[in-house]
Parts: sequence; structure tokens; C-alpha cells
Amino acid sequence: MNLILLFANDVWSGTTCFLANGRRTDHIRSVLRSSIGDSIRVGLYGGAQGSARVEAIDDSGVTLSVQLTESPPARHRFDIVLALPRPKMLRRILRTVAEFGVSNLHLINSARVDKSYWQSPLLSQAKLSDALMAGMERSQDTIAPVVHCHPRFRPFVEDRLSLICNGRPCWITDRGAPVALSQTPAAPAVVMIGPEGGFVPFEIELATRVVAQRVHLGERILSVDTALPSVLAQGLDVD
Amino acid sequence: MNLILLFANDVWSGTTCFLANGRRTDHIRSVLRSSIGDSIRVGLYGGAQGSARVEAIDDSGVTLSVQLTESPPARHRFDIVLALPRPKMLRRILRTVAEFGVSNLHLINSARVDKSYWQSPLLSQAKLSDALMAGMERSQDTIAPVVHCHPRFRPFVEDRLSLICNGRPCWITDRGAPVALSQTPAAPAVVMIGPEGGFVPFEIELATRVVAQRVHLGERILSVDTALPSVLAQGLDVD
Repeated sequence: MNLILLFANDVWSGTTCFLANGRRTDHIRSVLRSSIGDSIRVGLYGGAQGSARVEAIDDSGVTLSVQLTESPPARHRFDIVLALPRPKMLRRILRTVAEFGVSNLHLINSARVDKSYWQSPLLSQAKLSDALMAGMERSQDTIAPVVHCHPRFRPFVEDRLSLICNGRPCWITDRGAPVALSQTPAAPAVVMIGPEGGFVPFEIELATRVVAQRVHLGERILSVDTALPSVLAQGLDVD
Repeated sequence: MNLILLFANDVWSGTTCFLANGRRTDHIRSVLRSSIGDSIRVGLYGGAQGSARVEAIDDSGVTLSVQLTESPPARHRFDIVLALPRPKMLRRILRTVAEFGVSNLHLINSARVDKSYWQSPLLSQAKLSDALMAGMERSQDTIAPVVHCHPRFRPFVEDRLSLICNGRPCWITDRGAPVALSQTPAAPAVVMIGPEGGFVPFEIELATRVVAQRVHLGERILSVDTALPSVLAQGLDVD
């Protein structure tokens, strides 16, 4: 946790926030080892960030005096469309998109997505939020990516994809594509990443017919949990 | 497994290779669902790769007729120096460096590396090999990264780092550095990645005094398992 997330439904009194005992107070006590008077980095979930002075630490929780003066960091310039990964990998995927500050993650079906993955309890709103917050706490972000689920490939591509792109280019990762993602213009875009084994030819064909353009990530076959940060690293804006 | 790794100590007779029952034959039977006469992709560990014809499948194993005609894919242009991650993350880290075809991975100590990590059974040669092979099988590589362990930071930096670099630039990742890794020349290099929480100032100072130059990976704090593929993605050669 490089930032403690505060919530509108914590116990507020003006700019004073009381955190009842839990994961955050454990972190303040045991990792930060904060004492009264110390300053810690905080952010309001969905809002501004800044610092907080530790006012009290007692058996019931931690009281903070909060000053929120900074904007959250900039969002990543890519929205991501990703074939739903297996549950074991999904949690890390969610953390990664939150670390990079992706605005929208569209989880879609694909021929090589096991149907059972859509039944994962991790897709509940509460579990999704927990996994995203792990990334936000890491990268000091207060804005959560919005996760959209599209359990049918064809209606997603035919009816939704162009609307989602809304004029932005849509890159679909496909080994052997004629151009590398890193060679595309440094502009906002939507990037589609397939499942382990890749999109099947029909899917590539349909997506490119509608809006997508094929790009590659180098000559090697990469796992999804390697391909995703590779895509996001190549979309980092450099000043 | 996008390639079945064969070993010199498999049972060879000329170009015929017998695979005794195990993980590879399970894959041939259950995932590839190969029949006699089918061709599968194979590679000799440490050597060339090509195809094999399935000659026999019986209770004891699978017999292949092997043709090794292709060179392994090119190596990545970065060697990686990485503060030893926690064991849970190390296995994935090893897979990632193998997927990208890194030639050398130097695992080093750092102030923020828990001493207990050096006791991980995963650091045994056999376990390291297994974890690396998972990446090689993924990316169709037959060359394993060489993993070097350096359990003392200062002697590593003072006595070894310049020799390892051998004239190549050495980039050390440090948030707030004046230049981005992606802005550095597309040439062979050694890249140092810190532990969760980053290198401490003394470590940055010592490394830069000896040979390293500070680079950043964007404005955000990234987890080690996100930072590593980000570094490697930014070092991909694009034709």
C-alpha cells in the first residue's frame, strides 16, 4: 500500500476520518508503524488525494486528519479488451490494469475461453473491486478501472466495439501481424488481447472487418499475463 | 506448451526419440490429441528446433521421429539484474524472462529483500529449470536463461557489475529518474530492477557511481511482476 484509500462511507467528521480496525489500520500499525503526528499518504476512492496526519491510534481504530489537495495521476491512453482469463490469472490481471491506470477493461468471450471462467466468483462486483484496489494502492491511484463483461463475442464485436472505440483506433494483437504495436501512433486507442492460444481466425477476421487493425508484440508467443503489461508498457506516455 | 522440449538424455536412437510417460506425453495425448502420423513442434533443449512425426503411442510412452532444422529465436537484447522477489512471485518472474528470451538473469540482494527469500527451495537448480521451461515451452524457445544468484549487494555492484556490463550501458530503474527507459538507444544493455518498494538511495548511489544510469518506467509505482515485463516489452526489437 503506497496510498491508503479512504471511502465516502468511512466515518467522517469534517476533514477527520476514523478508520475502524481492518486491513488499512493493520497496515498503518504494522507496516508503516505510524505514530501520532505522522503524515501518511491517502486518497479518496474516486476522488482527490493528499496526506493525512495520524491523530489517534486506539483499540478501535485510527483517526486521521485529512487534506486532499492533489488530482489523481493521469489515466493510461489505452482501453483494454481482453479475452476472459482463467480465474487464477484474473486477479493479477485486474491488479495490473489498475496499476497502469486503465480507464476501461472489457472482458470478452472467445472461442478459447473456457465457459466455466464466466462462473468465477471473482467476477462479482465486490471481488473485482478488491482486486482493483490492490493495484490502486500500489500505484497511488484513486480511480478504479471500470470493468465490463461481455459474455458473447459476436454481439460484442458487431454491436459494441465501434461504439466503444468512438473514433479511436482499435488494435488487435495477432502474432505475425504486419506492424508492431510499438510502431503505432502514440494516441488514445483500444487494444484487444486474446486468450492463451490467441484469437481464432474467425475472431480476427470479424474484428478487423468491423474496426480493428492487427498488430504484433514481437515474434514470441507470450502468456496473457505477460502480453498485458507488455501492451500497457508500450502505451506509456513519455514526456 | 507450444513446443515439446526434448533432452539429450531422452531415449534416442538416431533421429528417433522415445518419451517415457510424463508431462510431455500427457500433453501430446490430452491437449494436442495427437495420432500416429501427426506432426508436432519440438526442440532440443539448448539446441535446434523443428518438427517431429508421431510414430507410436503406447502404454509406456510416445515415439517421435525428429527433424531439427531451425535455429532457436533470437535472444532479448537486455540482461536483467533483479532484486530477489518473494518466492510466490519468483516462479512467474522466471517464466517471464524465459518467455522473452533473456540470456542472463542476475538475482541480487537489496535492503528491501527479505533474507528468508534466499532460502526458497525454488532457487535449487532443478526448480529453476522447471520454472524456466514453462516459459520456453510457451514461447517456443530451446535456450534457457542462465540464472545467477548474488546474495550480497555491495560486492555484486563493486566487483561484478562492470564485468557483467562489459561495455554495455547499465540502466537502473528509479521512479523520478530524468529519462525513460523507452527513450534510451535500442542497443544491448543491462537493466536493474529493484524490489517492491524500490532500491534504497544508498543502492542507487553505489550503482550509479560504478556504472549504472537512472531511468524511469513512467510516473507510476509498479509491482515487480509488472515492472519486469514492462522493461522487457520496451526492449523488444522491432523490424
